[in-house]
Amino acid sequence: MKRQVRNKAWAGRFAAASNPVMEAFTSSLAFDKRLALYDIRGSVAHCRMLVKQKILTRTEGEKIIRGLEGVQRELEQGRFPFLPLDEDIHMAIERRLTEKIGPLGGKLHTARSRNDQVLLDVCLYLRDEIAAIQQLLGALQKQLTRLAKRHSTVVMPGYTHLQRAQPVLLAHHLLAYYEMLSRDRERLQQCRERVNVLPLGAGALAGTTLPIDRHHVARLLGFPRVSENSLDTVADRDFLVEFLSACAILCMHLSRLAEELVLWASSEFGFIELPDAFATGSSMMPQKKNPDVPELVRGKTGRVYGNLFALLTVLKGLPLSYNRDLQEDKEPLFDTVDTVKGVLTVLEAMLPQVVFREERLREAALGGFTLATDVADYLVEKGVPFRKAHEIVGAVVRWCLAENKRLEQLSLQEWQRFSPLFGQDLFPRLTLESAVERRRSYGGTARANIERRLRSIGA
Amino acid sequence: MKRQVRNKAWAGRFAAASNPVMEAFTSSLAFDKRLALYDIRGSVAHCRMLVKQKILTRTEGEKIIRGLEGVQRELEQGRFPFLPLDEDIHMAIERRLTEKIGPLGGKLHTARSRNDQVLLDVCLYLRDEIAAIQQLLGALQKQLTRLAKRHSTVVMPGYTHLQRAQPVLLAHHLLAYYEMLSRDRERLQQCRERVNVLPLGAGALAGTTLPIDRHHVARLLGFPRVSENSLDTVADRDFLVEFLSACAILCMHLSRLAEELVLWASSEFGFIELPDAFATGSSMMPQKKNPDVPELVRGKTGRVYGNLFALLTVLKGLPLSYNRDLQEDKEPLFDTVDTVKGVLTVLEAMLPQVVFREERLREAALGGFTLATDVADYLVEKGVPFRKAHEIVGAVVRWCLAENKRLEQLSLQEWQRFSPLFGQDLFPRLTLESAVERRRSYGGTARANIERRLRSIGA
Amino acid sequence: MKRQVRNKAWAGRFAAASNPVMEAFTSSLAFDKRLALYDIRGSVAHCRMLVKQKILTRTEGEKIIRGLEGVQRELEQGRFPFLPLDEDIHMAIERRLTEKIGPLGGKLHTARSRNDQVLLDVCLYLRDEIAAIQQLLGALQKQLTRLAKRHSTVVMPGYTHLQRAQPVLLAHHLLAYYEMLSRDRERLQQCRERVNVLPLGAGALAGTTLPIDRHHVARLLGFPRVSENSLDTVADRDFLVEFLSACAILCMHLSRLAEELVLWASSEFGFIELPDAFATGSSMMPQKKNPDVPELVRGKTGRVYGNLFALLTVLKGLPLSYNRDLQEDKEPLFDTVDTVKGVLTVLEAMLPQVVFREERLREAALGGFTLATDVADYLVEKGVPFRKAHEIVGAVVRWCLAENKRLEQLSLQEWQRFSPLFGQDLFPRLTLESAVERRRSYGGTARANIERRLRSIGA
Amino acid sequence: MKRQVRNKAWAGRFAAASNPVMEAFTSSLAFDKRLALYDIRGSVAHCRMLVKQKILTRTEGEKIIRGLEGVQRELEQGRFPFLPLDEDIHMAIERRLTEKIGPLGGKLHTARSRNDQVLLDVCLYLRDEIAAIQQLLGALQKQLTRLAKRHSTVVMPGYTHLQRAQPVLLAHHLLAYYEMLSRDRERLQQCRERVNVLPLGAGALAGTTLPIDRHHVARLLGFPRVSENSLDTVADRDFLVEFLSACAILCMHLSRLAEELVLWASSEFGFIELPDAFATGSSMMPQKKNPDVPELVRGKTGRVYGNLFALLTVLKGLPLSYNRDLQEDKEPLFDTVDTVKGVLTVLEAMLPQVVFREERLREAALGGFTLATDVADYLVEKGVPFRKAHEIVGAVVRWCLAENKRLEQLSLQEWQRFSPLFGQDLFPRLTLESAVERRRSYGGTARANIERRLRSIGA
Repeated sequence: MKRQVRNKAWAGRFAAASNPVMEAFTSSLAFDKRLALYDIRGSVAHCRMLVKQKILTRTEGEKIIRGLEGVQRELEQGRFPFLPLDEDIHMAIERRLTEKIGPLGGKLHTARSRNDQVLLDVCLYLRDEIAAIQQLLGALQKQLTRLAKRHSTVVMPGYTHLQRAQPVLLAHHLLAYYEMLSRDRERLQQCRERVNVLPLGAGALAGTTLPIDRHHVARLLGFPRVSENSLDTVADRDFLVEFLSACAILCMHLSRLAEELVLWASSEFGFIELPDAFATGSSMMPQKKNPDVPELVRGKTGRVYGNLFALLTVLKGLPLSYNRDLQEDKEPLFDTVDTVKGVLTVLEAMLPQVVFREERLREAALGGFTLATDVADYLVEKGVPFRKAHEIVGAVVRWCLAENKRLEQLSLQEWQRFSPLFGQDLFPRLTLESAVERRRSYGGTARANIERRLRSIGA
Repeated sequence: MKRQVRNKAWAGRFAAASNPVMEAFTSSLAFDKRLALYDIRGSVAHCRMLVKQKILTRTEGEKIIRGLEGVQRELEQGRFPFLPLDEDIHMAIERRLTEKIGPLGGKLHTARSRNDQVLLDVCLYLRDEIAAIQQLLGALQKQLTRLAKRHSTVVMPGYTHLQRAQPVLLAHHLLAYYEMLSRDRERLQQCRERVNVLPLGAGALAGTTLPIDRHHVARLLGFPRVSENSLDTVADRDFLVEFLSACAILCMHLSRLAEELVLWASSEFGFIELPDAFATGSSMMPQKKNPDVPELVRGKTGRVYGNLFALLTVLKGLPLSYNRDLQEDKEPLFDTVDTVKGVLTVLEAMLPQVVFREERLREAALGGFTLATDVADYLVEKGVPFRKAHEIVGAVVRWCLAENKRLEQLSLQEWQRFSPLFGQDLFPRLTLESAVERRRSYGGTARANIERRLRSIGA
Repeated sequence: MKRQVRNKAWAGRFAAASNPVMEAFTSSLAFDKRLALYDIRGSVAHCRMLVKQKILTRTEGEKIIRGLEGVQRELEQGRFPFLPLDEDIHMAIERRLTEKIGPLGGKLHTARSRNDQVLLDVCLYLRDEIAAIQQLLGALQKQLTRLAKRHSTVVMPGYTHLQRAQPVLLAHHLLAYYEMLSRDRERLQQCRERVNVLPLGAGALAGTTLPIDRHHVARLLGFPRVSENSLDTVADRDFLVEFLSACAILCMHLSRLAEELVLWASSEFGFIELPDAFATGSSMMPQKKNPDVPELVRGKTGRVYGNLFALLTVLKGLPLSYNRDLQEDKEPLFDTVDTVKGVLTVLEAMLPQVVFREERLREAALGGFTLATDVADYLVEKGVPFRKAHEIVGAVVRWCLAENKRLEQLSLQEWQRFSPLFGQDLFPRLTLESAVERRRSYGGTARANIERRLRSIGA
Repeated sequence: MKRQVRNKAWAGRFAAASNPVMEAFTSSLAFDKRLALYDIRGSVAHCRMLVKQKILTRTEGEKIIRGLEGVQRELEQGRFPFLPLDEDIHMAIERRLTEKIGPLGGKLHTARSRNDQVLLDVCLYLRDEIAAIQQLLGALQKQLTRLAKRHSTVVMPGYTHLQRAQPVLLAHHLLAYYEMLSRDRERLQQCRERVNVLPLGAGALAGTTLPIDRHHVARLLGFPRVSENSLDTVADRDFLVEFLSACAILCMHLSRLAEELVLWASSEFGFIELPDAFATGSSMMPQKKNPDVPELVRGKTGRVYGNLFALLTVLKGLPLSYNRDLQEDKEPLFDTVDTVKGVLTVLEAMLPQVVFREERLREAALGGFTLATDVADYLVEKGVPFRKAHEIVGAVVRWCLAENKRLEQLSLQEWQRFSPLFGQDLFPRLTLESAVERRRSYGGTARANIERRLRSIGA
């Protein structure tokens, strides 16, 4: 039993061995394994700095780094021997290093604590993952602009309240998602700057008495900034909450796109045909072709929201500085990274294969009196106050509904029953093309606007 | 490529093969494996019913069941050959069954869909897990009552606002958690009754045209009830939300206990000594003995809250009936079950080894003027309106603070400066024992109450 | 300044007056006003018990009760003079009582604390509100069964993945919501039993030294149970979390119904026409008729989820017993009660006026190869293993898609190209009526099932 | 009844009047009143632009603006006559304008929709409120730096796991919160830039056919940017989610500070004395002085988390573009703004009056073997590998615990029993001042660091 205690790096003060139930409960190895290579990278930089500051000799430093490189190879080749007694990845690596190079391995932890070490690992990891997500976001935006260009003249109904409202270009609709993803990228970029601050050197909570050089470590690892307050550093998980929250917004955007894909793939809308390669069937109903991909994209929003809330809950009311509760930061983070990369990847692969049924879109755009606002605007141009114009056209629509007619079918005489201001010049307005083309206000759906926007984003 | 499509149970209608990105994205095998044995148990019952109803012949039924038993052995012995193309555990098992018994395996899915099949698996699983959690809850309650009995005369300060308020028995404090866990058990029991409703037979969404007997399946599997509406059945995840919500409340309770353990283990409180076997040290600070177990218990509240919110988000606004989003129900469920069992297990193991420092508790109970209410009650008994009594004692306390005295140290003369009603009979009141013993109102902290409660719960 | 301190019921011990910023920040009067009449009702019962126990004289009791009745009249008539210095509704009422009957008013608070008093108010309030919600739930269920009976022969497409799957009766679809609401009622009923436990008498945290009779108060106020542990009682908000969680599930159900109403009211589905009286228009687009009511019902799910998580967050990690954080329980509760009653009321008023377009529903049910499963079942009855049958029908569907045909249009010869087992007896199967009627498995969509269910629920 | 429909700006197309239940359910006037003055400001700018673009004549424009100014005065003086039929603040103001200036009022809504109008109001409002919150954040930071300077030599125990870990300066601890709030300000500043984008001109969803000049409106209202895509604009609530999420992090920070204040104000810690003016008493216990302010600050975290999740839920899965669900964005926003301003204001008022009990802090810092790491560092400097040093000191601590000694009490002989490397030069290390002063690593607790940081932030 005593032997077991001795295996712990912190066992000196303890009289009794750890209970295995406790060990299983507190171990983080199952998930923090993922940080292994970042841990080694951080340790190498830490070691180089210790040498530069003469806290370690050059020979000691070289031996440790060679040892770490050996451990790294074992990890990369899947040969690293994890042991049940390893509490976490940091201890596993240090234990292995010591097996390889002897007690000298025990010098690596000089002037650092796991509290700042694990933060370094997470920052290195997340910095990379944000870059990867940015790339995937860019790729998805690319697919959206490609689709927009491919379908640059296709008109569809624009909706409010899921009711047909005014005709818009499909390209305009697709680019709305482009804009959302642009904001996501901006937010993630700014979040990354707050991730990109060196925590190492905060020690357990108060810094260290040894003459370390944190700015040197920062340079070695490419951190533009060094954290300012050691207590804050080890207690802080802001950058994770902020990342989770940026991902929650991103997934919210994708849930809206997914919802639309599900709607559009329904028989009722019939706006798109999903590629067979991205649909699945039913185990019971032989005719089914289901939009599982967008459904799962929509559903996975839940887990990202949940991860955000999990971490916010963990942090609520924690006194300074480090508390073990903070170990619960990793699984929500990892799951969010995996989920976000997964949904972006699958959408980017699927989108270019989605077939837009242009005729159905156009037909739908003609339904639902979508040109009514154009008629009101026509009256406004003739001097009618907008509210009055709105009322007149409302009456026209009500009459059409009763008579089962469409606006395009009314004769001039019929129009004039509602207002003498209607003239022949109304009719050219009553086409989808006119409606779209005349919405030239900045950000409006006119084709010229779309083209300008595509140019301005370099698509 | 075509070959790949053919492997799917639903491939008949599809012209192109699945994209591997899509397959990886939609596969649930990694986590629904956990349901494997429940899936087989459900299939055996389904098969027996198909035979009883003459949808399968007796020979077919026997062959299928023998086949399923073979698959079960493979699963139990870890020899089951999972394939990358298996979409989920149901398809993996059916595929394996067909490998073993030939095309007859294809008859097992008669009159059912994965939509009702997976629900059956989850119900069987959760039914068992709730029972397991109930048992762990009972075991933890047992430890609480044991501690209460062991320390039946120990007085400690009762707190409001984390300020010492009135003396209470430690046993009373411990039993407060007993009561919380009792409500948890009651809620889980009622939830279990709503889990315990047979979903199988709802088919994909509308029931089946084949002459099945759902009540027979229910009897075979021990379900007291059969679901009433097939559309509702395949769309419903209420019982999971309810379970997650009951677990969120349970974990909230444990987070409060954990918070108290962390406080009590601090140098400042010093009320308890955690067992070495359930504490950990620091990699940097040699003197540290940290309450990692209660900290993690407290932190894990976050993931359970997060899981609840994840599932609520998934379900929000989903049209009937089954949607693939619902696949996202399993990981929050499994993680919650594991987490709840984990925290209950570790607390049940740790609690009996916690050492309560009785002298510190008693000393603390004497501080903070905890007997002030007793003095006010004394005046009330002498006919002073409570508000006036409260004011008088408030003034006494203010004077004591200025003079740096404790209530117990005042002379009768000093008391009488504040009210002539104070007499010698006040002094016997100014002990912790008196204060505790006199709180005999039902549910109050008097020892007689505690003993009565312990008896009534059979402890 | 000193004067201001003196106004506080607890000022005796304080040397300096309250800061007005603090007073504004901590005051709960703005929202706990709502509990005023419950507070008086609780005080009357408390007072009667104090008389019975001879803690107050009969004369004192009568005077206090008459005073409270006067205060009640002022509240009911909107004449109650709230003062800025009233901290909360309890203090406001006690202050007013004392203005009316003099220092005797100060005796009312004998043997109770605001900690147990406010809980009593909340329990009385919530008990009533749950009953009110139950009634509204029943009324909405009534409208669903009425609609089901009114449209008892209407066939519509049943959906999975928002793809047409199998024909179902509209009545079956409507009754799916009936079942959900039944579970909601069951949950709320069980929650109400946990609300219905008398907290008064727990005192501030430890009970009281005065000889109160809690069971008498319980009888006077109709509580079947009395709380068991005073510390638990004042710290407990389980019953509120449970209520919020039951409401979250309920609102989730309504969000699904709302989503369907929005879909069905779209031009693309066209399944329903919303009544003008429950739709709104657009300030810009004269033709619009928007389903604002179901949209808002769907949206309000957010606030109820948010309220649940607000309270769970408040409770996480709070040490025993009462902490002021708990004051934050009231606004989420009140907002949830208002929201739930609002959505139930508006749906109950709107539903009977929704016009179902039966022809559109029927037409839609015919599309999307919804009879494919019936063909597969046909083959199963001829002895084909289900998986094989599924494959054959899948191939038929693929062929139809290529040839732009519907299943009903195929000749026997064409069928037999896919399997020689197809015979003339297939054709009677290829009708919506047959498909619906043959799904007679318990809980399936057959009309007989619906009628049985309507009878069993007394509709 | 017909009259009632006619009152609606959108009534033209409707045959039946609104149901009053529906009107009450959908009305937003009760809360969007708060936007009234912003609505007028936006309308004035819109009107000026319409004149510039010759959509209105100069005379019309002047008349409208004078009318709006009249309405503004009524609002400012509380004389504005709200009517039950006003659906929202926009309609109320337009209705009132028309009462004042006749049908010309109906021209104001030319070329805009409530969909973009309400967004403009919210952007103008939130832009101001973020600025106000930034100011409050700055003021609270100021109080923290003042306290840090006032107590610049006070040593306290630094904690990890709520166990005393290493001595730190109180100023270092206080500045940790300064750093958190700095990140909050940075995040809010970046959020504000995304709020600061003109939405007006997006129309209902697709822009407008009228020749508006959005950039002119932007200049008039001080928006540096104009939104790029009209569909995205009316569907977007990112900036609100981002604001709520920044506030959730901010409140999480304050919940940690609040937790520490509650702990420190307890008898057990005794680190601070709260000012009487910011504490409250108990209605039952005359001696109580409770930290209600920090408790409520901590509790209010819940509502801000809840508001964030409410809005995320609302947005999940909404198809483009505007849906009425989005009306549910306002109450969580307003409540968050009020809550955040409230907690910042009260903390800023209270903090300078908190009395730090310097002797208690110092005494506590001496307990718990907080100098153990310094001893280990001492051995490292003598060449012992850190792990070995840690083990040696661990053994010393264990021995001290058994012997009931403190590190400072050991003789050289006793030290040397554990390692011959201990020498006389150890003793000067064993003081709090040495421990603090030697932690000079960047961000560490040494006084020089604190002073440097205070200078760098201009305090």
